[in-house]
Amino acid sequence: MILQPLLDLAELCVRRGIHHAVIAPGSRSAALTLAFARHPHIQTKVIPDERAAGYIALGMAQQLGQPVALICTSGTAALNFAPAVTEAYFLGVPLLVLTADRPPEWIHQQDGQMIHQDAVYGKHIKESYALPADYGHVDSRWFIERTVNQLINSAQEQPRGPVHLNVPIREPFYPKSDETFTYGSPRTITRVVEQRTLPQETWEELLGLLEDTDRVLILAGQQVISEALLEILEQLKNEFAFPVVGEVLSNLSGHSFLTHPDIFLGSTQPQDERCPEVLITFGDSFVSKNLKLFFRKYKPRYHYHISFRRELIDPFQTLTQQLAIEPEAFFHTLLETLDLRAFRQGDEDRDTTFLQSWEVAEQKAVSGIQHFLQTREAFGEFQAVAQVLEQIPESSQLHLANSMSVRYANYIGLTQRVTVFSNRGTSGIDGCMSTAVGAALTTDQLVFLLIGDVAFFYDRNALWHSHVPSNLRIILINNSGGSIFRMIDGPRQQPELETYFETQHHTTAERTAQDAGLVYYAIADEQELVKALPSFLNEDKKAKLLEISSDPVANQKTFDQFKELMKAM
Amino acid sequence: MILQPLLDLAELCVRRGIHHAVIAPGSRSAALTLAFARHPHIQTKVIPDERAAGYIALGMAQQLGQPVALICTSGTAALNFAPAVTEAYFLGVPLLVLTADRPPEWIHQQDGQMIHQDAVYGKHIKESYALPADYGHVDSRWFIERTVNQLINSAQEQPRGPVHLNVPIREPFYPKSDETFTYGSPRTITRVVEQRTLPQETWEELLGLLEDTDRVLILAGQQVISEALLEILEQLKNEFAFPVVGEVLSNLSGHSFLTHPDIFLGSTQPQDERCPEVLITFGDSFVSKNLKLFFRKYKPRYHYHISFRRELIDPFQTLTQQLAIEPEAFFHTLLETLDLRAFRQGDEDRDTTFLQSWEVAEQKAVSGIQHFLQTREAFGEFQAVAQVLEQIPESSQLHLANSMSVRYANYIGLTQRVTVFSNRGTSGIDGCMSTAVGAALTTDQLVFLLIGDVAFFYDRNALWHSHVPSNLRIILINNSGGSIFRMIDGPRQQPELETYFETQHHTTAERTAQDAGLVYYAIADEQELVKALPSFLNEDKKAKLLEISSDPVANQKTFDQFKELMKAM
Repeated sequence: MILQPLLDLAELCVRRGIHHAVIAPGSRSAALTLAFARHPHIQTKVIPDERAAGYIALGMAQQLGQPVALICTSGTAALNFAPAVTEAYFLGVPLLVLTADRPPEWIHQQDGQMIHQDAVYGKHIKESYALPADYGHVDSRWFIERTVNQLINSAQEQPRGPVHLNVPIREPFYPKSDETFTYGSPRTITRVVEQRTLPQETWEELLGLLEDTDRVLILAGQQVISEALLEILEQLKNEFAFPVVGEVLSNLSGHSFLTHPDIFLGSTQPQDERCPEVLITFGDSFVSKNLKLFFRKYKPRYHYHISFRRELIDPFQTLTQQLAIEPEAFFHTLLETLDLRAFRQGDEDRDTTFLQSWEVAEQKAVSGIQHFLQTREAFGEFQAVAQVLEQIPESSQLHLANSMSVRYANYIGLTQRVTVFSNRGTSGIDGCMSTAVGAALTTDQLVFLLIGDVAFFYDRNALWHSHVPSNLRIILINNSGGSIFRMIDGPRQQPELETYFETQHHTTAERTAQDAGLVYYAIADEQELVKALPSFLNEDKKAKLLEISSDPVANQKTFDQFKELMKAM
Repeated sequence: MILQPLLDLAELCVRRGIHHAVIAPGSRSAALTLAFARHPHIQTKVIPDERAAGYIALGMAQQLGQPVALICTSGTAALNFAPAVTEAYFLGVPLLVLTADRPPEWIHQQDGQMIHQDAVYGKHIKESYALPADYGHVDSRWFIERTVNQLINSAQEQPRGPVHLNVPIREPFYPKSDETFTYGSPRTITRVVEQRTLPQETWEELLGLLEDTDRVLILAGQQVISEALLEILEQLKNEFAFPVVGEVLSNLSGHSFLTHPDIFLGSTQPQDERCPEVLITFGDSFVSKNLKLFFRKYKPRYHYHISFRRELIDPFQTLTQQLAIEPEAFFHTLLETLDLRAFRQGDEDRDTTFLQSWEVAEQKAVSGIQHFLQTREAFGEFQAVAQVLEQIPESSQLHLANSMSVRYANYIGLTQRVTVFSNRGTSGIDGCMSTAVGAALTTDQLVFLLIGDVAFFYDRNALWHSHVPSNLRIILINNSGGSIFRMIDGPRQQPELETYFETQHHTTAERTAQDAGLVYYAIADEQELVKALPSFLNEDKKAKLLEISSDPVANQKTFDQFKELMKAM
């Protein structure tokens, strides 16, 4: 007899908007698996490697903006979810992690797959509960109903994140072959979160500051951004001469914003003219070290950061106030109030010197990198990535793997409107491909993944299942090892470079692609790339992998020259 | 300038007997990497996937009986060690885990690879410390010296296990190119553990019991066992008619002990004649459900378990006293004292009925399974495994993956002396191949691994590095999915069997073998197996993979027939 409360759990998920589950196979978890698999309103994906399963669920939940249920059996299975759970925690992606477990009295009894699963995700989970092992008492069912509602509320509330329910299950694990499932009518308990607005004094103070200075900078961290907010930012720039700056992960590309700070802030020239008086940041992390060093050196007097996180996140060491409000609401009110006050005070021309100094730098960076890439003699990964990025069709997605992939894309930038994602919560290489697979499973858009060989082979189990999505397009830069170590001075100078840092290898992805049924293109020079691109970019329903091989030493030389270009900006 | 305390840490490891390090590449961890890589008395292996690296270190440490240093960079890298750390914790294998970290003030500041690394292994670590971020103060160096000594002591003391040192490191991460390393003279602080003997009253009580009954059973759990202890057990059996029983993982094979309890204890016939009055267990876990159910049903009146663990581990629900003493010391004293008392009391013939009832059952099981396997019509994995196991040369190692592999081997058993290992601490499939790779890297013996396709592909990054050992011999049973689910009644009856439990696939290991440079044999029938075996078993220095493909439905049929055989025992 299957446990009725587990059927109700699945039903409650549906009632609370969860329609997707990623399931890693197991016996202890069978009742959970079947409760979700047989529910008519839940789509399931079965992924054998839990590490990949976790990141695939993360990729799905990121697209949906809703929690995805992530189910595994007991034992180290739960631990293999931990990297994705941790990335979801820092990136703010909602997940409902359901780990089957032995009843607590069986833990540490040398009886199969048992570990200490309570609180197994430590500090990297928003909330964690364990169900009672015995579901018979009426209070147990009350506890389950209430707890699951609370966990789903928690996952969905800002800042979003993963939640964990440990589910002890006794034998028998499987229903009888003729057993029919009847999903109950569990109670939903939602939580209405207060509408967050800022106190009037805060607005007064901020507006006063903004009117007192011509050096106001808006800086966008990693985020997926709405069209409405983009329009507001455009108006703030046009009407009040606030430079709006972001990286490739800020998703400002395809507009008139400044998206190459990583290049021009690397200049060794004095940059005092670009030092803001007031800095307003929103979104999550930044990739560029140049950018971080710039703000640590040219400190704004006031730094407002818009974020719902409880922690004071202060990577520039400049923060003066954190504002717990939605960015769109914040900038909307800001624009309206500034407009009103400007109207009252009469049309006074705003000094645009500050904006111009940023725009000139951006222009110089854009033409600088274009010229740089066009004038390289040898073909290498930097130019290849630029050529591919340029041709990614509008309205696609681009996923950027750590570690050189996201950096190349950040230097090169995009001119078209493509939504960009990256696992920058913890910046690990361990699930970049799985996250892109999860995204592709959830959207009809083409999903491009730019990835290096170490991240690719590390996460190759992202492709080991029966759901490889046909809209997936992998661009693999294979430089026979972790070339990032060759690009930075410290490891390059060590005799251990190739063995201990790059970990050189000579594996291509061809056989992995064959095993996974991907259309495969091997690219070794520009002609091959030009020839392959139309077919690779084609929207036909086949997952594809474009492997660009290049010489790490030549790539290093190009990158050295590029660093010189940045310094001279 | 490289941090001198990290050089001293490497030197201290050497002085404390740690001569092996497994290193996952990273930048934050560079100073640790170089401190170990450049030490003339440390052998290092560089493994890119931290999950595989962790299990490889476990496999090495298990061979050495000494901690292996396991090094990674900050972020999710540390989490990918968690499955192996947890297995090491429950299996009792010493590991010194060194995780590089940001200094604590940088945690949760959206600045690259940072997570909450303190106490990241939760309850699955014997001890965990974090070094201070600033090494300048003289007390810091005292703290490091003392703490590392304490951690190494802890890892080595019974029950052995993993320990963790979190190592915050500030930039610069790399030494200058002309910098020479000078290892200091760190102080070693060992801890002498009391010699553990049992109080005289305990001996008196136990000996009294043993003399009062003819039904004393010695049952060995998973362990690597010494020749000396095997001899003592042999004498206890011969002189006092104590049946000595164990599974394939107890390493009793090749002697006159009883190693097929998994078969004959599955009988549906009454087995009262085999119910012990006194049960003495030692070693770790048992695989056989039949065995566990037998003792839960036929409960001994007294159950002594020899173990240094603090936890009362009681999988049969029969334990009456735990004895914290070395098994060899215990059985040595037991034999000597029993001998002395028998001599004093004059030669009285011991009743051997109880021993005979166990020996008869063992004989029946051995001839039963032999006849069973010889008389199957269709070739399948059960017979194939039997044929391969039979031919594994003496003085090799055999690693058994979870989940069907270890069960098949336990049914079939071994007649030769081969040392058997398996990750039965948590019984996960996630690192079985890596553990065997780690073992092969540390021994000159041939290392055989029996593994199913799900465990193989799950852990394929065990082979993604430049150290694949030439003494590795992989026997892969590919039945196109997780066939264990087909062998048990519950999932077999579900319409979801193939999709949600077996997760059927059609991938062979051929391409994986090619990528890893393994000699590859594809086997589909008995003739091919017979033909390939001599070459596969050959000791030439080439890693090899023997892939035996079979039909899951036919395998299921064979296994069903086998279950009938067991019931009729």
